[in-house]
Amino acid sequence: MGPQVSVSDRTKHNLITRLNRIEGQVRGVSSMIERNVYCDDVLNQIAAIHAALNSVEKMILEGHLKSCIIERIRAGEYEVIDEFLVTLRKLMK
Amino acid sequence: MGPQVSVSDRTKHNLITRLNRIEGQVRGVSSMIERNVYCDDVLNQIAAIHAALNSVEKMILEGHLKSCIIERIRAGEYEVIDEFLVTLRKLMK
Amino acid sequence: MGPQVSVSDRTKHNLITRLNRIEGQVRGVSSMIERNVYCDDVLNQIAAIHAALNSVEKMILEGHLKSCIIERIRAGEYEVIDEFLVTLRKLMK
Amino acid sequence: MGPQVSVSDRTKHNLITRLNRIEGQVRGVSSMIERNVYCDDVLNQIAAIHAALNSVEKMILEGHLKSCIIERIRAGEYEVIDEFLVTLRKLMK
Repeated sequence: MGPQVSVSDRTKHNLITRLNRIEGQVRGVSSMIERNVYCDDVLNQIAAIHAALNSVEKMILEGHLKSCIIERIRAGEYEVIDEFLVTLRKLMK
Repeated sequence: MGPQVSVSDRTKHNLITRLNRIEGQVRGVSSMIERNVYCDDVLNQIAAIHAALNSVEKMILEGHLKSCIIERIRAGEYEVIDEFLVTLRKLMK
Repeated sequence: MGPQVSVSDRTKHNLITRLNRIEGQVRGVSSMIERNVYCDDVLNQIAAIHAALNSVEKMILEGHLKSCIIERIRAGEYEVIDEFLVTLRKLMK
Repeated sequence: MGPQVSVSDRTKHNLITRLNRIEGQVRGVSSMIERNVYCDDVLNQIAAIHAALNSVEKMILEGHLKSCIIERIRAGEYEVIDEFLVTLRKLMK
């Protein structure tokens, strides 16, 4: 059993709704490619998916910092910061 | 009938395979949130989705520049550049 | 003699003013580091430099697309697109 | 007197050397614009400045997380996380 986030049911529901919408957007891009749709529209749709994913990412980042990071630092488990830095580098590209 | 991209069947198949995989990754994040999985893993998964989406984006961008942009500039339809700049601004943030 | 951009004197002046300001902002970060200033402020200052650089980048990108790209495509030098794709990949990370 | 970062002299020297180099790169872009240099080269130079700035940013981010963030969380000053989230949002776009 690994550590768990304490995300409220409300936030969890909000996140899952957003992720379902993103899934639909990705399916929409597949369908555009399938139908040889004009590519400027496809690029716009991809930009919209990145933006939607960024919103989800920020919500999860906030939850992570406010729960896991605080708890583990208080418990003296400072290696949580090294793990977080590795993740942050990936998120920042 | 709007303009169409001339993407080879091979590239089209490659793009759709990648998009199907991205859809699965988004579903994976939903399932992690559902199971209250440790959030550093979720953030890593989101970073992977952004990266996968970037690969698709670059392939489509290349197709767009090498087909639509060239054809429309040769036809004197320079407004294609203004449309492209708007899209590029969204893709670059 | 390589190809040249036809950027208006007004745009050129605007770009140089912005770049001078960015130089000052970078010097400001050096000075903060020198004085051991609280790092959240330094990070904010760096975010401001990235944003200022993005504005300059968008202006140059627009000039590039509207002059060099159009001219070279009209001249049948389609390799300009390959060069541009390489640059774009760097700009998009 | 605000909080201070405890960055080693070695890291501080490294950061200042990098920032001086970035200042020179920004001056280089000004000079390219002044001489109407071919813009694909200018865009490449700007991409290099963003990358150099990202390296500095990551070093400062690491220092911030490993000093200020840990100390203030241990002191129960959890508002440091809210401040950090605001900064992170700017750095991530």
